Amino acid sequence: MLNESTQGVFTIAATPFLPDGALDFDSIDRLVDAYIEKGADGLTILGMMGEAGKLTAAESVSVVRRVTSRSAVPVIVGVSAPGFSAMTALSKEAMDAGSTGVMVAPPMGLQTDAQIVGYFHNTAEALGNIPFVLQDFPLATGVQISPSVVLKIVEDCPTCVVLKHEDWPGLEKITALRKASDTGSRRISILCGNGGMYLLEELLRGADGAMTGFGYPEMMRQVLDAFQAGDLERARDIFDAYMPMIRYEAQPGMGLAIRKHSLVRQGIIRHSTLRKPGAGLTAKTIAEIDALAARQTRRLSDLGL
Amino acid sequence: MLNESTQGVFTIAATPFLPDGALDFDSIDRLVDAYIEKGADGLTILGMMGEAGKLTAAESVSVVRRVTSRSAVPVIVGVSAPGFSAMTALSKEAMDAGSTGVMVAPPMGLQTDAQIVGYFHNTAEALGNIPFVLQDFPLATGVQISPSVVLKIVEDCPTCVVLKHEDWPGLEKITALRKASDTGSRRISILCGNGGMYLLEELLRGADGAMTGFGYPEMMRQVLDAFQAGDLERARDIFDAYMPMIRYEAQPGMGLAIRKHSLVRQGIIRHSTLRKPGAGLTAKTIAEIDALAARQTRRLSDLGL
Amino acid sequence: MLNESTQGVFTIAATPFLPDGALDFDSIDRLVDAYIEKGADGLTILGMMGEAGKLTAAESVSVVRRVTSRSAVPVIVGVSAPGFSAMTALSKEAMDAGSTGVMVAPPMGLQTDAQIVGYFHNTAEALGNIPFVLQDFPLATGVQISPSVVLKIVEDCPTCVVLKHEDWPGLEKITALRKASDTGSRRISILCGNGGMYLLEELLRGADGAMTGFGYPEMMRQVLDAFQAGDLERARDIFDAYMPMIRYEAQPGMGLAIRKHSLVRQGIIRHSTLRKPGAGLTAKTIAEIDALAARQTRRLSDLGL
Amino acid sequence: MLNESTQGVFTIAATPFLPDGALDFDSIDRLVDAYIEKGADGLTILGMMGEAGKLTAAESVSVVRRVTSRSAVPVIVGVSAPGFSAMTALSKEAMDAGSTGVMVAPPMGLQTDAQIVGYFHNTAEALGNIPFVLQDFPLATGVQISPSVVLKIVEDCPTCVVLKHEDWPGLEKITALRKASDTGSRRISILCGNGGMYLLEELLRGADGAMTGFGYPEMMRQVLDAFQAGDLERARDIFDAYMPMIRYEAQPGMGLAIRKHSLVRQGIIRHSTLRKPGAGLTAKTIAEIDALAARQTRRLSDLGL
Repeated sequence: MLNESTQGVFTIAATPFLPDGALDFDSIDRLVDAYIEKGADGLTILGMMGEAGKLTAAESVSVVRRVTSRSAVPVIVGVSAPGFSAMTALSKEAMDAGSTGVMVAPPMGLQTDAQIVGYFHNTAEALGNIPFVLQDFPLATGVQISPSVVLKIVEDCPTCVVLKHEDWPGLEKITALRKASDTGSRRISILCGNGGMYLLEELLRGADGAMTGFGYPEMMRQVLDAFQAGDLERARDIFDAYMPMIRYEAQPGMGLAIRKHSLVRQGIIRHSTLRKPGAGLTAKTIAEIDALAARQTRRLSDLGL
Repeated sequence: MLNESTQGVFTIAATPFLPDGALDFDSIDRLVDAYIEKGADGLTILGMMGEAGKLTAAESVSVVRRVTSRSAVPVIVGVSAPGFSAMTALSKEAMDAGSTGVMVAPPMGLQTDAQIVGYFHNTAEALGNIPFVLQDFPLATGVQISPSVVLKIVEDCPTCVVLKHEDWPGLEKITALRKASDTGSRRISILCGNGGMYLLEELLRGADGAMTGFGYPEMMRQVLDAFQAGDLERARDIFDAYMPMIRYEAQPGMGLAIRKHSLVRQGIIRHSTLRKPGAGLTAKTIAEIDALAARQTRRLSDLGL
Repeated sequence: MLNESTQGVFTIAATPFLPDGALDFDSIDRLVDAYIEKGADGLTILGMMGEAGKLTAAESVSVVRRVTSRSAVPVIVGVSAPGFSAMTALSKEAMDAGSTGVMVAPPMGLQTDAQIVGYFHNTAEALGNIPFVLQDFPLATGVQISPSVVLKIVEDCPTCVVLKHEDWPGLEKITALRKASDTGSRRISILCGNGGMYLLEELLRGADGAMTGFGYPEMMRQVLDAFQAGDLERARDIFDAYMPMIRYEAQPGMGLAIRKHSLVRQGIIRHSTLRKPGAGLTAKTIAEIDALAARQTRRLSDLGL
Repeated sequence: MLNESTQGVFTIAATPFLPDGALDFDSIDRLVDAYIEKGADGLTILGMMGEAGKLTAAESVSVVRRVTSRSAVPVIVGVSAPGFSAMTALSKEAMDAGSTGVMVAPPMGLQTDAQIVGYFHNTAEALGNIPFVLQDFPLATGVQISPSVVLKIVEDCPTCVVLKHEDWPGLEKITALRKASDTGSRRISILCGNGGMYLLEELLRGADGAMTGFGYPEMMRQVLDAFQAGDLERARDIFDAYMPMIRYEAQPGMGLAIRKHSLVRQGIIRHSTLRKPGAGLTAKTIAEIDALAARQTRRLSDLGL
């Protein structure tokens, strides 16, 4: 069960589609297998990157069931919704299907500290005893959550057990939260997003792992393993080898299309299709990705990877 | 069928709940009857005021079926959704249940003209031959739609047949759109929202009617009737009598709670319950509403209403 | 000197220009005289409505000097600026010229409670012992200030002595602040803006007066006098007579142009010129204003005004 | 004189302060010298990174005069201001002091295409015959400018001669603009910002150079030289060596403090002071920067740099 000690690599999963936009269940199976093979300790599905908002309620349930039945590792389900009724309904389906917990991002439009705290009070109440991940992603939601607000939610809501940290800048926030839990606040797990852009610094600041997507998801595993083995220089070497691609994926609104392209190139999913309004990649973009991938392969090879 | 000639009063319907938050179907029936009795030419359900985002997909369908089966006047269904799959699914249910068309607001976050036009291209394609209302409500969505963008959507999408106009300020926009349709652009219906705050000026600028909610929905009927009868001074007298309450309802985020309170006071629905995060009204607010209502009754009585 | 006991009507002053955009000092003189004659207890200049952002630093100083030397009532100067150096420089000029205090709105972009509190800590430090008005106008600034944040600023910054209240909705905020000062918080003055749209309810909630602009500034005086005389029904009658115009002025981005038009019509200033990007009024808009003004005159005449 | 053929490296200059916040003119001199020595073809001062908004009007003029009198390369002056009067006043001072042109970013709050085009029409009119750079930086301004809007401004305003490109994502925008100028639109210079994060891809897409800040400004020179020499692999090697630091500087709101720290470390300016509300760096952040700098030095050394 998801809890405050959760750590490691939780890979954010894409949702594969057929060229006509229908769910591609065969690719879902292969993707689950590949994520685990490449080192995932858990999977997070139906996040923003999973195009959750583009699925009907019925489709969301079918994805949850397929992934949970296939996966040998814990599955967290994104249940952010415009209202608590839809959130509760999907959460119940997720837990019934065997998920380990759910993830909730605040809706666009929240501004004051009190509004944000109030929203998560309502969330915790709506979810009952289901443990949840608080997704803190201001670049996408427009909602800025201060460290003191995170701590207030953690204090008030025992079922909030993980912070998906993707504030930007966010390193001082990790330090502030860790300092608070070192001096008496309840300590929850911090798993970092933002495509891994600051992964090493985040680990150095006290994060418990990664929860993000990347076209080559073994990156998170390799960096974390080297870091945990105490070989910081090797961790930096690996991290730097992936960095040009991490940076390229970081382009807002393009990351998912780039990742799907990379997953197709590696033979993991069949189609790079995004549902509308997601757009395809131009030839120039594809050429840029492929050039970065070729250099990445060379540099990793120099590192014995 | 909803089309470019649609006119009159389309009342935006609240969604009544029981004190525990469940749908109150008996109150739905009474509310439908009351709206029609008070002069509605049509109803618009599952808009923002209908707390659409707080319903599950299944609940939305049940509300659509209940209202359409009860209503003697055309019903338009709000189908705004985070993605086109959910929008399409609800639209199909709405039309199957006998609705006359659907309404779509752009999602928060759209900024450039091209993004907005693209969104409605996708909407029109997703909806197929279902006629739709374009809801233009920047105060709630944050999306600013220029007159030229409205005209582009109207030109490109034959199924866009009504503009729910609630830009603020918005009077010059009506004039610009009417000037365009007088000189060759396709003319669509303009029905005005914003709680009726500028209803008379909107009619004078060329609007075809109202599409809004108000705690005393006969206001739209009475103002429109006097206006169409050519008695502008009487239209102003009636409008002014309601204005203190219109203004009070205009407080963002409070309008629905105020309207539900007024509907309960008039014996139309049983409970003023809002689903979370909607909040109840304080005693001071209720006292203010009641004081305004008492004066409103007196002033209307002076007008023989 | 501006302090926590400040009360009454502080009229927000327009800045008159000549047709070529230069400052019109003769009209400034006449405007100052007229505001006082129509009941102002004080003036607030170089606010948003004063087109402060469109003046050079040197022009701002010249307006401050002209108004303070002409005015028989206290003058508050808006000193909001992108940085504290410019704010400090203008504040010093204002106080040297004989102003009673300054007014500061938070800059666009502030989001969390901590950012807002921090901004006003810096403001208070930059201003030294100059008393200031905290302008709380989210519709214009995008900055949402919770009651608890206002109270924190009031507690931390002894030189914050007045709240220019124009949150919307804002009535519960007044009640919350008054409840806090009744139970131990430092009590500061609350003067209300928003063009007077909720003036009477604000007074009933405990506000100390008005600080706003309106094309017929005697409205604030008349409503406040009737209210303070204990004649609430008469206060409502007067308030309602002005309400159609108040509502019309409330159109965002148009209020100033409408007010300048009204001031010209009354022979107070010579030109309705706005500096760019301010736009002029169309003929239809002018006709609407004039129709409202004619009815307003009739209704006020019925009230003996 | 700044024109459509401008190309190369325009370094965005910091504004050095003494520990008490006063301008540090000696450090300005040294900084100008260092930027040129490290390969700048021109300098851009009083941009966002130059803390322009935190200077008084008088201070801005003194910085302009100091830099232009010291610099052997062309100087562009950021003149973005809340109003056109202040913009015009500073622009005149800049040109009188010998600057080559000015730079203007759109103000926060502009939304529709028509608003943006209108703003730059007014800008061009206010500036007269002074050539200007259009700064397109949505992450900072919140203003999204479509390629078609850039092209409209370029078509309507002959004095708009350079685009400071820092949209994100922005690569397809460069391609769109170059395709347009290849097929008949007026071609203007495109110089890229965003701290150089996508510099190489931008050059490959047709950009004319860089206009950005970075703690090691020789990076832009070295990458551009290798690129222009046709040695793309070497350009990538150099670019990748700097990338961990580029990424670290990219943290919003922190870049300037990091750059000032790096400039102090290199002995170029004396103090890393920022004016409020700019904050200093924590010990952990400084340690992270220094670790990145050490690795950067090693990797550059491997490349013979």
